[in-house]
This record gives sequence, C-alpha cells and structure tokens, in this order.
Amino acid sequence: MTKFYEDLVVGEVTDLGSHTFTAQEIKTFAAAFDPQPFHLDEEAARQSHFGALCASGWHTCAIWMRLMIVDVDRVRNEAVAQGLPVAERGPSPGFRDLKWLKPVYAGDTISYSATLVDKRVSASRPGWGLVTHHNLGVNQKGERVLEFTASAFLQRRPA
Amino acid sequence: MTKFYEDLVVGEVTDLGSHTFTAQEIKTFAAAFDPQPFHLDEEAARQSHFGALCASGWHTCAIWMRLMIVDVDRVRNEAVAQGLPVAERGPSPGFRDLKWLKPVYAGDTISYSATLVDKRVSASRPGWGLVTHHNLGVNQKGERVLEFTASAFLQRRPA
Repeated sequence: MTKFYEDLVVGEVTDLGSHTFTAQEIKTFAAAFDPQPFHLDEEAARQSHFGALCASGWHTCAIWMRLMIVDVDRVRNEAVAQGLPVAERGPSPGFRDLKWLKPVYAGDTISYSATLVDKRVSASRPGWGLVTHHNLGVNQKGERVLEFTASAFLQRRPA
Repeated sequence: MTKFYEDLVVGEVTDLGSHTFTAQEIKTFAAAFDPQPFHLDEEAARQSHFGALCASGWHTCAIWMRLMIVDVDRVRNEAVAQGLPVAERGPSPGFRDLKWLKPVYAGDTISYSATLVDKRVSASRPGWGLVTHHNLGVNQKGERVLEFTASAFLQRRPA
C-alpha cells in the first residue's frame, strides 16, 4: 500500500499475517467496547448460542487494521531504506459488505489477506487514485470468519 | 433491542447517547489497533491531510457498539425489573455501506442513533426475525461523521 497507485495490479493478493486471539485479550476488548456475556465470560458463553468464549466482531476488524498498518509500515520502511520515493496514503471513505461468517473463539488463529479488486483514478482528487481491496480472515481450519471490501485513496506517481 | 421482533416498528429511531473522544483514548486505541501518525501524535496529525489528531474510524465504530449494548442492557433490566419476558438476541451476520464521512477530532462529541429500516421473519431460523438498522453518528456541529447499516437476529414472541 505504500506503492504508488500505478504499481498496484488488480488481482494481487497481499498476505497480512496472522493473529491468535487469547481469552484475556478477547475479554479486555469486550469490556471496553462490546460488553456482551459471550465475549466476557467462559461460562456465560457456554450457555449462549456461540457455545464458547469468542471475540467481538469489531475486535476481529481492529486486528485486521493493525496487521494492515504493520504491513504498510514494513513496505514503507523498506522503500525508505532503499532511497525510493514513498506514496502518500489518503483517508478511507469506508467499506461495504462486512460479513462475520463464523465465530472467532479463544485460541483461534486468524490469517488475514487483502486482494486488490478495483482501482480507478479519483475524479475529485487530482493526483490520487482510489483502490479497493477485498479483505479476508480465515481460521486455522481454513474456514472464512470475516470478509469485507474497503476503499482507500492512494497517491499517483508524480509525472 | 430486547423487545421481541413483533414489538419493533420500521422507522422507529433509538437514541443511543453520545461520547466525547479525548486525545488520550484516541491514542490508546490507535496504539493497540490503528497505529497511524495522525491517530497517535498531535504534531504529526497537524502535518497530515486531517490537520489535527483524530480517532481511528474503527474506534468510532467500537464506541457505537458499546453505546448500543448499554442501551440494550438498560431496556433489558427495565423489563426484568417489571417481571416482563425478555427477547433473546442472536448473532449479527455483519453490516454494509459503512461510511466515515468526516474525521472525529479530539474533543468532538458524537451522538449516535439507530433507525429500524427493515424487519423480516428468518427463513433459516424458526422463532427468529432479522432486523436491520441504519446507524448514524453526528458531531456537535450537526455533521454526520459515521453511518452504516447493520442486521441482527432477534427472537420472535413465543406463541
């Protein structure tokens, strides 16, 4: 994502790495932002429709965000180390079609990836393009747990 | 939302209350989940396209989630106190069309509301309905900063 707009190829898949959701961090996130019994307490979760302690859907999104930024920073730092120019990233207008397909249980390891599905030159922002990724989270059994489509502005390569 | 499916009326607006985003909590959330300079440091934010320290979009969603659950619990507790039956809530399959329309700056107070836009009996889960809300966050100037459409399963009133 620190590549310039012109460098991105539709269909390209970026591996964003993985994250294991511990019971403790599931509870900490839930206490702050999603205090429902099945995110806070093992016994209450066992008696819920989920059957076991599981992460807030927003927590699984927040970890995607962190891994994405870690990847962006890694690519940027490599470019800087090589003395290459670095593209500016603009704001994200939002995303669409977020699906929480399966629960993420305590101990699950989710692997995240992003596939570029669309790119277009911005009509409203000269010098910028809008890139759209389909983002995916898959658990250790190979089951899709999270997917959504997100757009963000990315700088075009200066002429 | 702890009302039964049959009790909900399309068009009904629920006021979810408001939240003021402090600089400290913006930085704490960002350090954990969205470590971009304009969410972490005032001076870096001033030099960014945002112009001032502002909250991660995911942070503004997470606070919506907390206020929504606080409201659900309030309604549930009132029902329990009156000896009334309480509807079970099921999982959310996800949401769509999330838009971060304006930055949420440190010190901004966001008021959240949810409008019921659709309800239908679930074909796959007997005894349950699927309810869809349009959720909105508005800042102290009356500007829309966040909106998205979310669905969730809700129990039907037992016959």
